[in-house]
Amino acid sequence: MHTTLTALRRITPDVTAVVTVADDGGSSGRLRRELGLLPPGDLRQALAALAAAEDGGSLWVEVFQHRFGGNGALTGHAVGNLLLAGLFEVLGDPVAALDEARRLIGVSGRVLPMSLEPLEIEAEVTGLSDENGPRTIRGQVAVATTPGQVQRIDLRTPRRPGGAPTACREALEAVLDAEAVFLGPGSWFTSVLPHLLVPELHDALVRSEATKIVILNLVPQPGETAGFSPERHLDVLFQHAPDLRVDAVIADRGSVAVPARLRDAAANLGARALFAEVADPKVAGLHDPDALAGCVREALDLVGRRKG
Amino acid sequence: MHTTLTALRRITPDVTAVVTVADDGGSSGRLRRELGLLPPGDLRQALAALAAAEDGGSLWVEVFQHRFGGNGALTGHAVGNLLLAGLFEVLGDPVAALDEARRLIGVSGRVLPMSLEPLEIEAEVTGLSDENGPRTIRGQVAVATTPGQVQRIDLRTPRRPGGAPTACREALEAVLDAEAVFLGPGSWFTSVLPHLLVPELHDALVRSEATKIVILNLVPQPGETAGFSPERHLDVLFQHAPDLRVDAVIADRGSVAVPARLRDAAANLGARALFAEVADPKVAGLHDPDALAGCVREALDLVGRRKG
Repeated sequence: MHTTLTALRRITPDVTAVVTVADDGGSSGRLRRELGLLPPGDLRQALAALAAAEDGGSLWVEVFQHRFGGNGALTGHAVGNLLLAGLFEVLGDPVAALDEARRLIGVSGRVLPMSLEPLEIEAEVTGLSDENGPRTIRGQVAVATTPGQVQRIDLRTPRRPGGAPTACREALEAVLDAEAVFLGPGSWFTSVLPHLLVPELHDALVRSEATKIVILNLVPQPGETAGFSPERHLDVLFQHAPDLRVDAVIADRGSVAVPARLRDAAANLGARALFAEVADPKVAGLHDPDALAGCVREALDLVGRRKG
Repeated sequence: MHTTLTALRRITPDVTAVVTVADDGGSSGRLRRELGLLPPGDLRQALAALAAAEDGGSLWVEVFQHRFGGNGALTGHAVGNLLLAGLFEVLGDPVAALDEARRLIGVSGRVLPMSLEPLEIEAEVTGLSDENGPRTIRGQVAVATTPGQVQRIDLRTPRRPGGAPTACREALEAVLDAEAVFLGPGSWFTSVLPHLLVPELHDALVRSEATKIVILNLVPQPGETAGFSPERHLDVLFQHAPDLRVDAVIADRGSVAVPARLRDAAANLGARALFAEVADPKVAGLHDPDALAGCVREALDLVGRRKG
């Protein structure tokens, strides 16, 4: 996410990050359980990523990202998570709170939660050693680290058992107003696909006239997507949102073993597959922001020409 | 402290609060023990008091003062304490951290710690039921709530056992440059007298050409000053800093049983005693900021005429 936001920020100052709110691990998980708030960690990371692209980052970004050490009650808490939690409680409105936080750290783009209520990821997983059939596991950490194979996910609303997740209104507006919408890269089942399982957000993504681009991961993720080929990533995306049409899929050339298969999987979503050198040659598994920005520009041009 | 800073802020925008750093209770005590930092609570309260006098107080003051509820690891922590702790750790300099915090919440005055290292109050206490002679007790909370009679206090430097407390350089400069310096009101043994026991700060207070004014408490404080008359407050001040000459002592007329005794105790410090209606008629034990500001102006005029 950090690299993608950095890359997009090089193309336009008007970037809105719509962030999953299903984290239940680490500092975020503790805050969520203790105070019943939206898990702030992914929101904080998105703010810091956008801020870093501004001007080298201010003191407040550093404070925001600072984690307490020691071995007491605060260990591992990022100051920004605690500050967001305080803003959430004082303002009672996560969107207003995030807007205050972005003013504090100097971000021109916007960060929004996909929903105003904390959500829980539930996954159907096969191949767990002690079971034969599929098994249901719950929680972002459990799903992200499962030794089994994730087949599909769904979202639960712990505050309203059985209810459908509701979308953040400003996130819907951002999707409908955008010129371009990007899905991925990131933890496929726990960060990218959840957006498609909030019904209103799914519908906005389907209806939006924005250019829709999927940015594939460079490598499978141990746990949730262990052994996944690039085309398998697209297949599960199609499986979770069969109505969603995509314009382009950006894949790293070196990460695709059989380009024809990826082209087919992309075509299944209505998309053209673009192969480019977008991996950071120095850090395995990370995109290079300049290369990615270049490829995104190319994709936008291509889709623009095709659309007319 | 809140009322005094509010009153002084009505007289000048150029107020510097020099704050004790010996708190070991509550949110501050937990942060101090867990992270080894200066206890931030009294510093935060001073910032909020100065900010409140500005323009009704901003959102950030509210966030700063907000305490987490629940019953978990964060319960009772003020967001401002956590933010100050983060700034202390990131900047490595409490003075720079406090200057950033005051810019955030919009304060024109300045808040400084009296020392850059956490200090510990030690008190000689008599009359504890299970003892005959005086007994030594340690820690701000223990001293503030003792059922015995505090006879005198001293300061310890837990980081450097046996060392003398060192003063914050900027606090010394503030005392030496000030036109007027105020001692009190506040917890006499645990908030007011500690300043006199930091040798460099004591010397700066003695040497400073500022008009020196003691503002007496309205009522004795259960625990540390239970049963203390106004003149007894001045006597223990003299006992802890016999070299300090004071210009004026402000006392609430209704709180002084025997004015002549207070005049004598003030004269012993070189001061004139001023009696005025400075108590808030609606809240017992609190000063009225307008009345106090009026009396402070009068005291400054009087001393100015006498001096020159």
